[in-house]
Amino acid sequence: MSTISPLAPKVSVSLSPLAGVRLASHACGLRYQGRTDLMVAELAPGTTAAGVFTKSLTASAPVLWCREALAGGRGRLIVVNSGNANAFTGSAGVASVRRTVETAAKLLGCKAEEVFISSTGTIGVPLDDAKITQSLSEVLGKLSESGWSDAAKAILTTDTYPKMATRTAKIGGVEVRINGFCKGAGMIAPDMATMLAYVFTDAALPAPVLQALLSKGAETSFNAITVDSDTSTSDTLLAFATGKVSHPEVASVTDPLLRGFKKAFDDLLLDLALQVVKDGEGASKFVKITVTGAASARAAKKIGLAIANSPLVKTAVAGEDANWGRIVMAVGKAGEKADRDRLTIAIGGIDVAQNGQVVPGYDEAPVAAHMKGTDIVFDVDVGIGRGKATVWTCDLTHAYIDINGSYRT
Amino acid sequence: MSTISPLAPKVSVSLSPLAGVRLASHACGLRYQGRTDLMVAELAPGTTAAGVFTKSLTASAPVLWCREALAGGRGRLIVVNSGNANAFTGSAGVASVRRTVETAAKLLGCKAEEVFISSTGTIGVPLDDAKITQSLSEVLGKLSESGWSDAAKAILTTDTYPKMATRTAKIGGVEVRINGFCKGAGMIAPDMATMLAYVFTDAALPAPVLQALLSKGAETSFNAITVDSDTSTSDTLLAFATGKVSHPEVASVTDPLLRGFKKAFDDLLLDLALQVVKDGEGASKFVKITVTGAASARAAKKIGLAIANSPLVKTAVAGEDANWGRIVMAVGKAGEKADRDRLTIAIGGIDVAQNGQVVPGYDEAPVAAHMKGTDIVFDVDVGIGRGKATVWTCDLTHAYIDINGSYRT
Repeated sequence: MSTISPLAPKVSVSLSPLAGVRLASHACGLRYQGRTDLMVAELAPGTTAAGVFTKSLTASAPVLWCREALAGGRGRLIVVNSGNANAFTGSAGVASVRRTVETAAKLLGCKAEEVFISSTGTIGVPLDDAKITQSLSEVLGKLSESGWSDAAKAILTTDTYPKMATRTAKIGGVEVRINGFCKGAGMIAPDMATMLAYVFTDAALPAPVLQALLSKGAETSFNAITVDSDTSTSDTLLAFATGKVSHPEVASVTDPLLRGFKKAFDDLLLDLALQVVKDGEGASKFVKITVTGAASARAAKKIGLAIANSPLVKTAVAGEDANWGRIVMAVGKAGEKADRDRLTIAIGGIDVAQNGQVVPGYDEAPVAAHMKGTDIVFDVDVGIGRGKATVWTCDLTHAYIDINGSYRT
Repeated sequence: MSTISPLAPKVSVSLSPLAGVRLASHACGLRYQGRTDLMVAELAPGTTAAGVFTKSLTASAPVLWCREALAGGRGRLIVVNSGNANAFTGSAGVASVRRTVETAAKLLGCKAEEVFISSTGTIGVPLDDAKITQSLSEVLGKLSESGWSDAAKAILTTDTYPKMATRTAKIGGVEVRINGFCKGAGMIAPDMATMLAYVFTDAALPAPVLQALLSKGAETSFNAITVDSDTSTSDTLLAFATGKVSHPEVASVTDPLLRGFKKAFDDLLLDLALQVVKDGEGASKFVKITVTGAASARAAKKIGLAIANSPLVKTAVAGEDANWGRIVMAVGKAGEKADRDRLTIAIGGIDVAQNGQVVPGYDEAPVAAHMKGTDIVFDVDVGIGRGKATVWTCDLTHAYIDINGSYRT
């Protein structure tokens, strides 16, 4: 693991046991030396499952499998390896997934469709799945309720720190827990990275309810962050509810009983997602961009992402340059309605431009001071409607080029 | 002007006089010291005009004016300043354009709608147009048939070399000339840059014919290049036909008489556009990406631009890394149909991946050798249909971050 990101959370989180989940990690030697590269999580019988995946049209074999398996809405086992993405590996990759889930299902005594699999690492190199399948029975023998931290470490690639979060909430007065961990540093770096996240709760949630919560929560967390605009072939967010805690039955995602849980769940997803941004490759600054006044929430998000993904905005942030002209440019290129002459931009809470022009008597000094911090805040109102969205990103630095432009060949 | 780009054309072009066009340049002191920042081109009465502009929804006041003026289809004068983009300057910017075109029209004795104006430079700073209007009569007194090279220099911002091209063609056996020049280095850098291009011919072409030629030609030239995916608020491509050469009348854009002219015209547009890419901020390598087998030409272009704009692909090129996995990723994120298991990728003409997997016995050595050159070629077939497109870009280097991340404040 390289030097820890300067944006890493100052306090490290530890996850308490969660009824119905046991974890183990192992070193299979797929690529790395002297570290674990296999994580297995066993889920109690009856656990429901939900997932959100990459929109890439060249999705990896494990992603295709998870989508298929999810139709059953049940999960008994998660198997994740780092070091090899099993992406762009053709029919060999599909066969590799099939062998792994079938071996795992046999060992655990469950259906293949209850085994979820993720792979992260190099693209285009056939995965030596024998290293995984031959380790599985040993790994299953090591399952433990306290394996969270080791599990979170085993799935890392270019990450500089493990990413964990935990919350509690009440459903009908009964306390339930949510644990989650994830990995990701570039949106993708085919040599190494991708975004994977696993969320667990001991609440009893029907699969369609869990799926609705996850799909909605992902929109304002994992789908509202960007490091470099690049989309992985393997991005995977899975959620599981073991139902080990007895609470009043939840009928639907709109059930008022779920209100507190939903808030905690969304909060945990955002916590994990922001940990990914803060470990963005080469990141030295964390940027929060809120767009208001757009035609719709979707338009606001598109404008926000255009700002967040602009190399010129990102290099200006790296250079601590309060270059609001580049924000104007990015708003313009987003392709969503904006009123050039009603555009308002604030940096660090200080108005910079209003009604399409620089504010009268603009004093750049306090704005420049804000840009020297590590937490940068842009607020943009595009003056059209009531659509609002927040997205998060990091800056584009020399270190990003060092990490991604290094000689692989 | 900073160090000349290593990708700059080895032979410099000089433009011969073109009947019906006279040019002059001048130092107004808008921003720069010791260099010209105003270019004026006078066009003979009867000259037809066509234009293609930025798709930005925060387009600058000069772009809005040109779009309006173009309705008349005639041009008598072009006025271009560098140093200030007159963008995001609100109603003051609109008034500034109005004063400039009215002063120019009065001096030349033409309609305001026959005066085209462009501004490139800093965004958000009110343009002191008095410096331009007060210089205009002096500048008009300096107009010369041989002012091409000086004109091409006056419009530069972060460019490291002037960009000119010339072609001849025959219409009905009569030789006509096409001259053009342009500027641009980042797609935009609000401190300095934007893309402006001016093309002139002495052929007699009705405005709708010229517009059709320009719109179509732009798609495979200026609209097929990218430096950093960022879109200027001011991008402008204008074409003028003075009609000073007598040749058989051209009825429409599909007139067979135009065949040779069209080829020369497209070739000149591409020549100019590629000079922009080769002066891309921080560029050390020039990248040609051809996508075939897509659902349509539009889909092929979108996939090509997704590859060309991927920071991970661009940093890999900078690092001379034959990282084809990143090309796969970019194809996947483009959102256009691609058959993952029929995808074929060649680098430098050497097959790297076929049918969705690395080629059997892949030898990276010749591919790595190609990556060490300055002209990089990617060919990608996505295995769906017959759509084809070529796009051009440059790499993403430390110098790009130095140029764009430098302290402005």
